[in-house]
Amino acid sequence: AGDPEAGKGKIGACAACHGTDGKGTAPIYPNLAGQSAAYLESAMKAYREGQRSGGMAALMNPQAQGLSDEDIADIAAYYANLEP
Amino acid sequence: AGDPEAGKGKIGACAACHGTDGKGTAPIYPNLAGQSAAYLESAMKAYREGQRSGGMAALMNPQAQGLSDEDIADIAAYYANLEP
Repeated sequence: AGDPEAGKGKIGACAACHGTDGKGTAPIYPNLAGQSAAYLESAMKAYREGQRSGGMAALMNPQAQGLSDEDIADIAAYYANLEP
Repeated sequence: AGDPEAGKGKIGACAACHGTDGKGTAPIYPNLAGQSAAYLESAMKAYREGQRSGGMAALMNPQAQGLSDEDIADIAAYYANLEP
């Protein structure tokens, strides 16, 4: 599983839209706080593999492409660990 | 915007994985309670248009294909309205 503490240092770009508290900074950006880590990992990997093209995928794909599996696990753990 | 009360009558299939309370019934199913309605609509439409192929898309695409825009708005409003 990911390390939320390590994730804290990797969410700089994510926080612009998803907040450091995991609350979307605009309605179209999903809240991530308290979301299931397994789902967050699966969603980030889908963006990374180019398996999503609707909605904000155009913005998310390049973000996810820069992430390793470990980064994805840590970022997922960070947001899953937050109070919704 | 969608009508949460109408949405309550349309979430039979959704609740199998996302719960009537919006809490995923297994880690891979995302929690939807308190999620942004705009995001939920955009995600359901992406599944409906076949713009998602990763993760649970194989399961979500057929579910979403049966939904009208009004259904999607009502279902999104129902889950967005729940306490996370």
